[in-house]
Amino acid sequence: MRTQVAIIGAGPAGLVLSHLLYLEGIDSVVLERRDREYVERRVRAGVLEQGTVDLLRKMGVAERLDREGLVHRGIILRVEGEDHRIALSDLTGGGVITVYGQQEVVKDLIKARLETGGQILFEVEDVSLHDINTSEPVVRFRHGGKQHELRCDVIAGCDGSHGVSRPSIPAGVLTTYERVYPFAWLGILAAAPPSTDELIYAYHERGFALHSLRSPQISRLYIQVRPDEDIARWPDERIWEELHIRLAREGWSLTEGPVLEKGITTMRSFLVEPMQYGRLFLAGDAAHIVPATGAKGLNLAVADVKVLAEALVSWFRTGSTDLLERYSDTCLRRVWRAEYFSWWMTSMLHQNWDADPFERRLQLAQLRYVCSSRAAATSLAENYVGFALV
Amino acid sequence: MRTQVAIIGAGPAGLVLSHLLYLEGIDSVVLERRDREYVERRVRAGVLEQGTVDLLRKMGVAERLDREGLVHRGIILRVEGEDHRIALSDLTGGGVITVYGQQEVVKDLIKARLETGGQILFEVEDVSLHDINTSEPVVRFRHGGKQHELRCDVIAGCDGSHGVSRPSIPAGVLTTYERVYPFAWLGILAAAPPSTDELIYAYHERGFALHSLRSPQISRLYIQVRPDEDIARWPDERIWEELHIRLAREGWSLTEGPVLEKGITTMRSFLVEPMQYGRLFLAGDAAHIVPATGAKGLNLAVADVKVLAEALVSWFRTGSTDLLERYSDTCLRRVWRAEYFSWWMTSMLHQNWDADPFERRLQLAQLRYVCSSRAAATSLAENYVGFALV
Repeated sequence: MRTQVAIIGAGPAGLVLSHLLYLEGIDSVVLERRDREYVERRVRAGVLEQGTVDLLRKMGVAERLDREGLVHRGIILRVEGEDHRIALSDLTGGGVITVYGQQEVVKDLIKARLETGGQILFEVEDVSLHDINTSEPVVRFRHGGKQHELRCDVIAGCDGSHGVSRPSIPAGVLTTYERVYPFAWLGILAAAPPSTDELIYAYHERGFALHSLRSPQISRLYIQVRPDEDIARWPDERIWEELHIRLAREGWSLTEGPVLEKGITTMRSFLVEPMQYGRLFLAGDAAHIVPATGAKGLNLAVADVKVLAEALVSWFRTGSTDLLERYSDTCLRRVWRAEYFSWWMTSMLHQNWDADPFERRLQLAQLRYVCSSRAAATSLAENYVGFALV
Repeated sequence: MRTQVAIIGAGPAGLVLSHLLYLEGIDSVVLERRDREYVERRVRAGVLEQGTVDLLRKMGVAERLDREGLVHRGIILRVEGEDHRIALSDLTGGGVITVYGQQEVVKDLIKARLETGGQILFEVEDVSLHDINTSEPVVRFRHGGKQHELRCDVIAGCDGSHGVSRPSIPAGVLTTYERVYPFAWLGILAAAPPSTDELIYAYHERGFALHSLRSPQISRLYIQVRPDEDIARWPDERIWEELHIRLAREGWSLTEGPVLEKGITTMRSFLVEPMQYGRLFLAGDAAHIVPATGAKGLNLAVADVKVLAEALVSWFRTGSTDLLERYSDTCLRRVWRAEYFSWWMTSMLHQNWDADPFERRLQLAQLRYVCSSRAAATSLAENYVGFALV
């Protein structure tokens, strides 16, 4: 087998890249470890920046997103039972976010890829990358009981934090930056109409809580827990009880519903530099992780592959490696800004039970400042709605 | 001896309070441990917020300040040799800072107090506070070789971080918040015309540096050093050499001159809650310390005593204790905001040699964001020029 771009991973990064390349007449093959049903059901992020939406629209895969996505013009900071609205749109000259589950984006992209003859191989096994540092890299894998070899010009590593791409780069090439936060999120997906029109980020002495949503019928709710928390200790009733307490506000109440899914996500910041080695380009979670608080993970992945697609188009068309050589630097500017914002939101909103009294009061001072200063709120808003894709 | 308000300390807080009370017909006595010459020469802060200038003007003690003070409409962040101007005035609708040495403010206030019959006792010894929690507090001290007793209605503790006022409050009453930073400033006052029209805050891999000034002939320069640094290891030539390196920018040079004074200041955040016990009210450094980076110390002291003077006037005139009871809460809102800002500026600009690589890159990401976002720059600017006095 031969293709121009071998794409490892059928998450949003890999699929967007594959379709962007297709639209420019560049051939790719997507290799995915899981089956189609699994990736189409995997519940992850749900907040799309305007730049992400615009790109999906331009790619012609936003028909259902435009119909079902929920456009939000603000978010709520609920501090000790009092609401402070961050008017995203007013503060940023019209910026909005669109609430639309990541698995829906994935469904739309898979459909578009298959309808246009794209090649996505699901349930591939034993993927390994070879000759990365030559002009003819090779991907070996098992599929349908047989061993395969995919020769290509370039490999795009879009297989997330635990994929094979990043570890295929020789030791010593990458510099790693990491921060593990002393908290995690226990999240549920519930068949309950959202009790709010806009996302609620709640600061509470018992810990952070977030009321998000996925559709007019489905709520997404989170509570901060310790990273080593055992989910078995959290029957549904206890989760709802804690949500009622942390999200409490006079004159407001939380609607419960059957819990469809629940899980614990740890919070960490991680990234490697550079995002490239030879003919292997890392994109999305394979290169960087942000804590979920800033809702940046999916959007960064899409931003990466937009840059990568443009660089590849330029290279295949003209032979110029300029853009490809700048790929890592171009992406990392946005990535570091998002890492900073995600760290900032995370530190501001979570209870750090290990912090000293000064830090805890400083956090409250910061939160009060953000709730009272237009400049500080604008700063939050412009980061939250996201900066223009380059 | 009897007075209405016994004021401990003839720094800016004590002197402004004494004169504000005088203007409202309230009698006070100021007790100062040092001699007049010492307090008039003590080099400290030099950046006045608009609110501070306005108050001094209203008090009629700003004639020389208006003549000699240097109005600045911006500051420079020099990051890795590149200048980013924070346009204080443009970003805040006209806000400015005024550069005028703290000792000049003190001189003007002492002159005004003495000209209007104010009582300032210099070189008092063995000051002790008694019966604070009664309606007739007493201050005992030695002066001119004799023991004295000053009876009063209220004591204002304006005697700084190491004064007797705060320790006079019984154990268990105050909650203390503190942070000691892992860096200090080595500062010089030099008879050299400033090499800049606006303050330069320099971020450099060797450590922070600040080019400030006091007058068209006098520069005030600082370099970050370790808190345990021995000043004996820093002959003038070495200080200048380090300043040249850290402040370097292409096409710019630093003018040297004789060093008039030099010293090391540690960086810490400190505050107590509440700022009151019985009839003793703490103001300024006696209640709170901010690291110097945000230039907030003197301004917070002035803000405190403005609130205190109004509360005392209301109490002496009407008997109402409303404002006095709210004194601590009113001040602490501003104090915590300034503590947050000072921590933020300090963390952003200093090299924390103990930080892990993630933190160090995050700091650079923050700095680049502040240099590129109008919202973030506005946030810095509005804090730097200061919020309106309440």
